[in-house]
Amino acid sequence: MSLTTLPHGDPAVVGDDKFHEECGVFGVWNVSDAAAVTALGLHALQHRGQEATGIVTFDGARFHSHKGMGLVGDNFGDARVIASLPGPRAIGHNRYATTGDTVLRNVQPLYADFEFGGFAVAHNGNLTNAHVLHRALVRRGCLFQSTTDSEVFIHLIAISLYSTVVDRLIDALKQVVGAYSLVALSNEALMGVRDPLGVRPLILGRIGADASGGAGAANGANGGWVLASETCALDIVGAEFVRDVEPGEIVVINDKGVHSIKPFGRTPERFCVFEYIYFARPDSVMEGMPVYEARKRIGAELARESHVPADVIVPVPDSGVPAAMGYAEEAGVPFDLGIIRNHYVGRTFIEPTDHIRNLGVKLKHSANRAVLEGKRVVLVDDSIVRGTTSRKIVEMVRAAGAKEVHMRISSPPTTHSCFYGIDTPERGKLLAARHSVEEMAQLINADSLAFVSIDGLYRALGSKGRDAKAPRFCDACFTGDYPVPLPDQADNNDRQLSLLTESR
Amino acid sequence: MSLTTLPHGDPAVVGDDKFHEECGVFGVWNVSDAAAVTALGLHALQHRGQEATGIVTFDGARFHSHKGMGLVGDNFGDARVIASLPGPRAIGHNRYATTGDTVLRNVQPLYADFEFGGFAVAHNGNLTNAHVLHRALVRRGCLFQSTTDSEVFIHLIAISLYSTVVDRLIDALKQVVGAYSLVALSNEALMGVRDPLGVRPLILGRIGADASGGAGAANGANGGWVLASETCALDIVGAEFVRDVEPGEIVVINDKGVHSIKPFGRTPERFCVFEYIYFARPDSVMEGMPVYEARKRIGAELARESHVPADVIVPVPDSGVPAAMGYAEEAGVPFDLGIIRNHYVGRTFIEPTDHIRNLGVKLKHSANRAVLEGKRVVLVDDSIVRGTTSRKIVEMVRAAGAKEVHMRISSPPTTHSCFYGIDTPERGKLLAARHSVEEMAQLINADSLAFVSIDGLYRALGSKGRDAKAPRFCDACFTGDYPVPLPDQADNNDRQLSLLTESR
Amino acid sequence: MSLTTLPHGDPAVVGDDKFHEECGVFGVWNVSDAAAVTALGLHALQHRGQEATGIVTFDGARFHSHKGMGLVGDNFGDARVIASLPGPRAIGHNRYATTGDTVLRNVQPLYADFEFGGFAVAHNGNLTNAHVLHRALVRRGCLFQSTTDSEVFIHLIAISLYSTVVDRLIDALKQVVGAYSLVALSNEALMGVRDPLGVRPLILGRIGADASGGAGAANGANGGWVLASETCALDIVGAEFVRDVEPGEIVVINDKGVHSIKPFGRTPERFCVFEYIYFARPDSVMEGMPVYEARKRIGAELARESHVPADVIVPVPDSGVPAAMGYAEEAGVPFDLGIIRNHYVGRTFIEPTDHIRNLGVKLKHSANRAVLEGKRVVLVDDSIVRGTTSRKIVEMVRAAGAKEVHMRISSPPTTHSCFYGIDTPERGKLLAARHSVEEMAQLINADSLAFVSIDGLYRALGSKGRDAKAPRFCDACFTGDYPVPLPDQADNNDRQLSLLTESR
Amino acid sequence: MSLTTLPHGDPAVVGDDKFHEECGVFGVWNVSDAAAVTALGLHALQHRGQEATGIVTFDGARFHSHKGMGLVGDNFGDARVIASLPGPRAIGHNRYATTGDTVLRNVQPLYADFEFGGFAVAHNGNLTNAHVLHRALVRRGCLFQSTTDSEVFIHLIAISLYSTVVDRLIDALKQVVGAYSLVALSNEALMGVRDPLGVRPLILGRIGADASGGAGAANGANGGWVLASETCALDIVGAEFVRDVEPGEIVVINDKGVHSIKPFGRTPERFCVFEYIYFARPDSVMEGMPVYEARKRIGAELARESHVPADVIVPVPDSGVPAAMGYAEEAGVPFDLGIIRNHYVGRTFIEPTDHIRNLGVKLKHSANRAVLEGKRVVLVDDSIVRGTTSRKIVEMVRAAGAKEVHMRISSPPTTHSCFYGIDTPERGKLLAARHSVEEMAQLINADSLAFVSIDGLYRALGSKGRDAKAPRFCDACFTGDYPVPLPDQADNNDRQLSLLTESR
Repeated sequence: MSLTTLPHGDPAVVGDDKFHEECGVFGVWNVSDAAAVTALGLHALQHRGQEATGIVTFDGARFHSHKGMGLVGDNFGDARVIASLPGPRAIGHNRYATTGDTVLRNVQPLYADFEFGGFAVAHNGNLTNAHVLHRALVRRGCLFQSTTDSEVFIHLIAISLYSTVVDRLIDALKQVVGAYSLVALSNEALMGVRDPLGVRPLILGRIGADASGGAGAANGANGGWVLASETCALDIVGAEFVRDVEPGEIVVINDKGVHSIKPFGRTPERFCVFEYIYFARPDSVMEGMPVYEARKRIGAELARESHVPADVIVPVPDSGVPAAMGYAEEAGVPFDLGIIRNHYVGRTFIEPTDHIRNLGVKLKHSANRAVLEGKRVVLVDDSIVRGTTSRKIVEMVRAAGAKEVHMRISSPPTTHSCFYGIDTPERGKLLAARHSVEEMAQLINADSLAFVSIDGLYRALGSKGRDAKAPRFCDACFTGDYPVPLPDQADNNDRQLSLLTESR
Repeated sequence: MSLTTLPHGDPAVVGDDKFHEECGVFGVWNVSDAAAVTALGLHALQHRGQEATGIVTFDGARFHSHKGMGLVGDNFGDARVIASLPGPRAIGHNRYATTGDTVLRNVQPLYADFEFGGFAVAHNGNLTNAHVLHRALVRRGCLFQSTTDSEVFIHLIAISLYSTVVDRLIDALKQVVGAYSLVALSNEALMGVRDPLGVRPLILGRIGADASGGAGAANGANGGWVLASETCALDIVGAEFVRDVEPGEIVVINDKGVHSIKPFGRTPERFCVFEYIYFARPDSVMEGMPVYEARKRIGAELARESHVPADVIVPVPDSGVPAAMGYAEEAGVPFDLGIIRNHYVGRTFIEPTDHIRNLGVKLKHSANRAVLEGKRVVLVDDSIVRGTTSRKIVEMVRAAGAKEVHMRISSPPTTHSCFYGIDTPERGKLLAARHSVEEMAQLINADSLAFVSIDGLYRALGSKGRDAKAPRFCDACFTGDYPVPLPDQADNNDRQLSLLTESR
Repeated sequence: MSLTTLPHGDPAVVGDDKFHEECGVFGVWNVSDAAAVTALGLHALQHRGQEATGIVTFDGARFHSHKGMGLVGDNFGDARVIASLPGPRAIGHNRYATTGDTVLRNVQPLYADFEFGGFAVAHNGNLTNAHVLHRALVRRGCLFQSTTDSEVFIHLIAISLYSTVVDRLIDALKQVVGAYSLVALSNEALMGVRDPLGVRPLILGRIGADASGGAGAANGANGGWVLASETCALDIVGAEFVRDVEPGEIVVINDKGVHSIKPFGRTPERFCVFEYIYFARPDSVMEGMPVYEARKRIGAELARESHVPADVIVPVPDSGVPAAMGYAEEAGVPFDLGIIRNHYVGRTFIEPTDHIRNLGVKLKHSANRAVLEGKRVVLVDDSIVRGTTSRKIVEMVRAAGAKEVHMRISSPPTTHSCFYGIDTPERGKLLAARHSVEEMAQLINADSLAFVSIDGLYRALGSKGRDAKAPRFCDACFTGDYPVPLPDQADNNDRQLSLLTESR
Repeated sequence: MSLTTLPHGDPAVVGDDKFHEECGVFGVWNVSDAAAVTALGLHALQHRGQEATGIVTFDGARFHSHKGMGLVGDNFGDARVIASLPGPRAIGHNRYATTGDTVLRNVQPLYADFEFGGFAVAHNGNLTNAHVLHRALVRRGCLFQSTTDSEVFIHLIAISLYSTVVDRLIDALKQVVGAYSLVALSNEALMGVRDPLGVRPLILGRIGADASGGAGAANGANGGWVLASETCALDIVGAEFVRDVEPGEIVVINDKGVHSIKPFGRTPERFCVFEYIYFARPDSVMEGMPVYEARKRIGAELARESHVPADVIVPVPDSGVPAAMGYAEEAGVPFDLGIIRNHYVGRTFIEPTDHIRNLGVKLKHSANRAVLEGKRVVLVDDSIVRGTTSRKIVEMVRAAGAKEVHMRISSPPTTHSCFYGIDTPERGKLLAARHSVEEMAQLINADSLAFVSIDGLYRALGSKGRDAKAPRFCDACFTGDYPVPLPDQADNNDRQLSLLTESR
């Protein structure tokens, strides 16, 4: 019996056989209690990262920062912490770390004093030439305090020869390659940036603008502005959705309003399709499409493509629920909760000995025998990554008396790794990269297994199918078609960024 | 903005306007890794108490104890803790504290050294003459270290004139009045007791009895035994359900097997009906009835009694889901997830200023506009206690564009407090104790409100209705018919048990 | 390299080869800020115990308690803690634990609710029949929460058939055997007790009695009272020494004044002589004799008995300083600081590997070469227990260039263990119990070694020598003459008081 | 009663009315267990800084770092921490922070990845043009992570156009102004630097070089090297003193031995005289003079200059002891311990209310009445800074019955602030800057007061007196003669280095 420390005590994500989103960002301009509003926004974005969180505010004279490991509520629930973050402008970040080096100095937002004032930045996503740039900057005499992409960005701004923050920001953006959304706060403005292809989401909202007020009733007559990774972060603070920030767009927000800059010209959008499948919260709306609606439609498409006779449609909770409902409705078969989820999982749990393992312990899922016994069951889940959890769940459902167990997946087979800010295993560990669907069915011990097709996925999202020449989405994890170049991957040099190992 | 420390960082319970179960118990006899098995059982019973947890084991020579505040996983996930609890016999406890004095000395199991050996005990429920007995014991010279009912029980055993543990246990049981289940561990035996009316649940299971072994492969040839509050705690450790412990029964388990004693003769069962409505985990089976099934049937009954024309049936997650499914099926109206639940709630959260409050912040629920907009919505929840949450939810659903909002509740109005081990507000704070259903509908701002009738509830659970002379259940919270006497309530003396205030 | 956790992070005591005092007590009646005054008194008594500390106050209606591991300043430096302890009456305790079971439940003062009110007690010393009484009490049905002597005492009071607290206290005192001083606080009075032979010290003082006031300006016109282990605790709070509590005396303090009770009749005093040699603080006065003065006189006696030609007299700091000064003055040889003490020792330190050990690492002492080089050195220390430190110090002094090193000890050889509340090794580990003085000199590598004689010790303290029939002091550690009976030592039964092992 | 958090729980320094040393440094090359050896060396240098500590090691491939707040023993007593710092080369640092911003990122050694490898540095002292350089570097695009002088130094190295580390080091040294000693560790070498005037100390030692070995038995045949602020850090690890690093010297240590570089040419030494008076440990030897010896000689000089008839010479412990001994010997008056020091002061202590303050509470000193009563007392202390403690001590001694109290100080009046790495109050708060000696005597309530003269001080240290043209020492705090320029003081710009306030 040995100890496993979970990376972030997250009831919904940890230990799942899932891809994991790598961060959520939030920013506000001109709102009372900006730190509290930002904490609430980050709380709504908690599913995008549970490992660490931070907020930087600006009170007109000084910047104030607080960061910590763990959940937003654990770090910003203390009123004294909120009180230590004065000012009507703020940015915040939720972190999901892909690498082991989760030390406090890597927690965002990062902050730097420039000659012309302070600058804080937080990003969601990944620079695909961060290592190449890092080495070049060190060669020039730059000292790095973290190993995050954001710091590469800050150094580029620090050494830029342009004089205004916005010009330096554009200068820096032109040197980086990647899939990212970022929010930044200077003495003068709140800024939001979305990468040229719009792979990662970023939306713009308005807070406290109307006379009826609410807490958002901001200092200025014109109310305030919000930037966030998803619309659910607007809802929690009573803000109003304005629009998605556009691919390649910089929005510069100050008391005069929102100024839009498009330094990259027009670029074809390639929004991450996995946001619809799993990452985004179901009550968010992305690029005009409600995520919940999208998931039900993918489930319906899945039923049309691969239904088998069955007595009950059972979701793998919680993420499989909407697709299962869409599937059940389309198939005309009852939807029922045959698997119960235990949300009480603490920061650590017992790693079973072989002895205990044989008990078939499931800490997070349990079978609801009343629903399963004697039934032909279709299980609906959103994805299979390594396949480990799928096999356990199929066996648990069989042990509860199911006659047949058919697994249906509301995404195509995940055959490629993501380099755009998502935590995925190396390709060799992706079950679908090494096995046919038939083999996979056997491996997870299901009577049958089917994935929605790539065209089916596009149909569900409103296209006729995938247009191979101009796909609407980034679907590299299913197709291997990587729309953003990968310089770091091509770079054969040693990937180690620091000679230092720090113990704390 | 001020700080609220939640009692137990529980995503499912804290801050809900619910009755709260006051504890879960678990015990094992003759199983390898008894402490690990008990930790898993307690994890499955986490919904019955998240404030504190403890395990006592016996290794044949010495007893070993570990207790802590918080979740099972947080306290027993560390392999060194499990290693400090050797032996094949154990009992454990999850605590939900009703009073403020949550100090470690009140965390169960309690332990005492008797002349004839050690004795540990943990209980679920409440002694209704604990104060009366406490005072009498202090008068006799007994020193109390905790303010828990269990310690009253231990003192009664300590001063009993009988010589065996079991005789002393019976002697003590005859002096206490209450609704309780308890598990106890002595040098000689594991014991389980259910109160004479069987208000609180306790079940008996078998572990590792077959030759195929598994982790339960116990020391003796005959395998081991398990006692637990619910069947879901058997499932997680691969144990097999044997039977409910009977009302008023003592089971004494040792290597010879299970010995049953019924010191109170035959008594009519009055099992707590709220276990079916809300307390128990949906995948448990209680008194032969699957809880999930019971909830769907109550929902169906509710639909038969009070359906109104509607476009969608929406559960208040998570507890309202099964009843809403039963309702939707019976009413022939689509079931859909119009409310999304955020499970990432840390140990503390921001207590809003008036300012923030006006934003209508909902930390745990958010509206899924895609499902609600323009619809006539029936919301299904399991109960209304103070009504505070209900009003917020109705308003959130309206704000998301619902045309009509009808609230349906899968329990009768809760008009009376519980004194049998459930955390309920004083009667004056129960909305239904002060208002008619019509008034309540107005107060929560619903277009209509209906509760399942008491007879409907009994019908759903397999009776023709409530037999006023011989009701099957304890339903005192709906009817005021208290089956167990309440000596402490009648006792007018000062209720304060200790003159000491301890700061830590 | 492995970790050693020191029991109490104490710069003066830990790791020394010394006997260790086992506790200090303090109590006040009728003083403003009683908790703060008690914290200051305990701070002055910190040398009597550094492992844990606690204070109980009474505000006229309720008792308030705070206890913690570590130093007084670490536990009671926080104004919020002091504020949580209201009332003009208090008792407090510093603990030095002899056994491993330092868990919070063993930290004093202990508290119990009796039928007639609350009762808190703290003691310095040891009951020599505690185990015998413990077993008898358990047999009677008493439940123990700690394994301390104080709890035996509380149970005896709880079950006494007398009706007043004082009568019950006397009843309990007549049943216990031991060497102890205790302070107790009930709803009605502050009580102080010294054992019949007066082995352990306890003194009475007056605080805030004069019109000039000061912080002690108490509520009542008559000022307040203080009980303490030593006079240094009076000095820090500006209290005035009144008298030593007499052997076998109970003082009962209330608003009417101090009432004296002598339930044991007249008994010959046997005050612990080691208080003069090492335990007490040098600025305390015990039984009329200033401790500092006593130590210098013992040093002078030592010089008269065993001086050798030398160039410098060097104390082993800090405790050897006064004796070395007395020695130097008597011998007419310069006193100088040849050994420097490092007071910065944290709670843990590096336990050296063999590798590091060879470096001759001395964490607490370093040689002052300027004083030692080429000199004939007389080192003066107060005692040799195991001899381990002595050898290291002699070698360090030699390595710094001393030509000769003579060790002089200001106590007779310690040949017997103490059972009266002092932490001593088993007899077999006392160097002087197994070796002649000549052998000891060789073992510690000194050119010569001498101890003050037992008669010399008595002479220094004002007697003609030790009167074998009626010795003034308890000197059992030098003579084996134990004045208080040792029932627990005679009792052959198993000494284990609890079957429970608790991990925290 | 309010809470005071002491900066560093230091028994010897906190709350004293003293100047405070600002750091100790230590480095080793080629020794087994380099991290453990460094921890021991830092432990011996603990008096030079108790606020925070850190060690960086290099194992030939990677650097390893651990830093923490508090004492060396508290941070490096854990064997797992030592094990996380492999390699035979290390540098370490003890920090005493003058400013409030004691956050972990400011704790030394600082580390940076350069193009050519890693580089760690720790310093004792102060750069007097750090702010000027900081601003210039930020203007150039450098990002600062700390607000320490060391980071200025690292940036200068990073941006230097020279190619080797040593050339870059020299390049950087030529740009900084100040009084400092530093140790640095690169992939290639251990380096030590002392400022051109040699204000701050640094010594070179040899470890494990002889065949007899000891723990220092290093990997190479030639043994290893040590750099340290004081010789006492050599003694604790069994290293041998080689020589003082010379003013303005760079020593570069690698497996070929020690290479000396003197980039500044020859400069007149101005060693800090206060090291002899108070900062250094008494058993250290500085510039050839044992510190203990120096202090006794200053005491003797003081007696010659200003003795008055007296019965006893009493030191203010601990720092006043050697001077008092020298004084007593010269004056022919008995030396005795009239003041006892309590070393048990925790991290926090009670800040008295007015109420408690009137009690005259002394947490760290108590009067030894037996020595003082009825006597004419000469108190000897090393310095008076603000005078607050002196007055309390004089009054305590009077209250203990002294007939006369004469204060003698073993340094000249401190009339000027130090800018060379010592924590001193602003000039306006120095008692001697505002008052004559006569006024000071009245203010501290002494019958007489005298300081050693500046010439007397020089005489005691072996000169004929102070040579105004070529003083041997830096004595700016007594004379206002600042030998190192003060560019930052002249710089009128805003002194704030960062716009960020970080809460943790």
